[in-house]
Amino acid sequence: MQAASVVHQPETPALPAPYLLFLGDTVEPGYAKTAFGLRDWAPERCIGEYAMPGARVSTGLPAMSPSQAHAAGARALVIGVANAGGVIPDHWVTALVGAVEAGLDIVSGMHVRLAELPALQRAATLHGRRLIDVRRPPDRLPIASGRKRSGQRLLTVGTDCALGKKYTALALARAFGARGIDADFRATGQTGILIAGGGIPMDAVIADFAAGAAELLTPDAAASHWDVIEGQGSLFHPAYAGVSMALLHGSQPDVVVVCHQPGRDRVLGHPHYALPSIEEAIALNLQLGRRTNPLIRCGGVSLNTAHLDEAAARRLLASESDRLGCAVADPIRGGDEFEALVTQCLG
Amino acid sequence: MQAASVVHQPETPALPAPYLLFLGDTVEPGYAKTAFGLRDWAPERCIGEYAMPGARVSTGLPAMSPSQAHAAGARALVIGVANAGGVIPDHWVTALVGAVEAGLDIVSGMHVRLAELPALQRAATLHGRRLIDVRRPPDRLPIASGRKRSGQRLLTVGTDCALGKKYTALALARAFGARGIDADFRATGQTGILIAGGGIPMDAVIADFAAGAAELLTPDAAASHWDVIEGQGSLFHPAYAGVSMALLHGSQPDVVVVCHQPGRDRVLGHPHYALPSIEEAIALNLQLGRRTNPLIRCGGVSLNTAHLDEAAARRLLASESDRLGCAVADPIRGGDEFEALVTQCLG
Repeated sequence: MQAASVVHQPETPALPAPYLLFLGDTVEPGYAKTAFGLRDWAPERCIGEYAMPGARVSTGLPAMSPSQAHAAGARALVIGVANAGGVIPDHWVTALVGAVEAGLDIVSGMHVRLAELPALQRAATLHGRRLIDVRRPPDRLPIASGRKRSGQRLLTVGTDCALGKKYTALALARAFGARGIDADFRATGQTGILIAGGGIPMDAVIADFAAGAAELLTPDAAASHWDVIEGQGSLFHPAYAGVSMALLHGSQPDVVVVCHQPGRDRVLGHPHYALPSIEEAIALNLQLGRRTNPLIRCGGVSLNTAHLDEAAARRLLASESDRLGCAVADPIRGGDEFEALVTQCLG
Repeated sequence: MQAASVVHQPETPALPAPYLLFLGDTVEPGYAKTAFGLRDWAPERCIGEYAMPGARVSTGLPAMSPSQAHAAGARALVIGVANAGGVIPDHWVTALVGAVEAGLDIVSGMHVRLAELPALQRAATLHGRRLIDVRRPPDRLPIASGRKRSGQRLLTVGTDCALGKKYTALALARAFGARGIDADFRATGQTGILIAGGGIPMDAVIADFAAGAAELLTPDAAASHWDVIEGQGSLFHPAYAGVSMALLHGSQPDVVVVCHQPGRDRVLGHPHYALPSIEEAIALNLQLGRRTNPLIRCGGVSLNTAHLDEAAARRLLASESDRLGCAVADPIRGGDEFEALVTQCLG
């Protein structure tokens, strides 16, 4: 029953590339995860970054104006940042219009449709450029049936938003492939879709169909096949727990991996809400996930240790693994801890 | 601190009335809750019912063809049934076209837009009739903030869909008013909106904004004011738990009332899913609701005893109240049990 030896990815759509990553005037790194994700997982498509005055985040890619980027070969500006609500502020529109005038298409994963920005629509029409929204779910989604599907599924879940659920899923899908296991990374957010070239933006789906969308995204498969599904939000998040619940029920995971950022103790953007402990997050995901998959289990914990040095990170992974009694790894650091996490996930 | 003595309802929109209630060819009474709700809570606007061959549900109102209803004064046909997915099947369209030709406007709470049915759109244009979709959420919804709001809130929750959450909320809002308490019924579904004349169709909201919609629906209010909020779905439902979660978090209820239909032991339309016990439903709603309102408590249980005779119903209410240690009532039957439920809700 040995499976194919590559990670099977959906087809990449015909998005214009390479990209110039737009950072707006963002000051909060947590909101720039689209830019960071593209830099890390699709570097061959990223040529530089473009930040407005006041920005305090950077991908480390060369800073370029839209004109410089176009001269260097860029074909699209990708909005690499999100803010609460997915709105494009007025002062960004001027910058986007400039990019269109410089010859770039615009690619967005925000809630608001690019074509709904009149100045941008006019500029795109005038200059013959495309406005591409990747955060558009399929037109006809099913109501979830709850029927158990064949194949294996892993869902990354978290104590909060923006702390590593997508990275963890990407790294696990890649590692499964490296072990000769047939696996698909299943994207549920705009950045994942830009990286994978397919998926369903769960947070843009009408609420009644959210679990059905998760079912559609992770269809029946061979018994040995794994879907590795990008989680969204958190069951403890005051705004997004419904999305997380629908994704948990609809994706019917056999395995959840709980993602956390050590040291973060308040919900991002909601400082009056304490983060749950890792143990609470494991327990609640298993408790609620059992409803559609009674065999759900925790495959381990993924810690985002970007703020620690190597030695401190390795010490923390070891001590947390001892404390929690499961595999604990930082997929970005890899190493023995990550191989142990992969092994525990595969069961 | 005595409050006003009337139930304050939002304005009724200019929906054409009276109504002819359309039942399609529905065989499952659980799917006809819009028709039953209008009959029971807005009888002055309901003139008759119109069923297609094969239907096995009835509101008890006079059966009329669209032409007969129009002659009797009806001004709109209201689609009084829903099915899984909110789709209007092709063989209903013919009947709806006939109603338009008979001079009636069409009012729908289904997901699909009436104007997206080409034959119906053509007929409406030809005959100068209106196609009105009430399941359309506000255009600009906020992301939930999680901020605690002033005033008191009660949310009806359930072990399943279609077992009395809307009726219970309507009856409690009316009873609060009868006790001189300022209270608003807050509608979250198409029938409730038709009855109340306002509200937000929670299941038609984009998932990211669902908790925010619940916050918008139940704004800051005077300390003694009660919002009595119509619940949706169930935290245990394989398709709709995400909607229930978002509504629970966003509405921040001080009190939940758990609704159940004795004897129903499988999820409606999902017979491979067992219903939770009442105790499980109480426990999970309190557990998850504490996230946005740590003071949440259970105000009691509402049982839908329509299938029992009076004596059996009263015995069941008493024995369940003893067993669960809280007020247990059937709001439709009223009586001492219901007064006890109202008292326990008000705390």
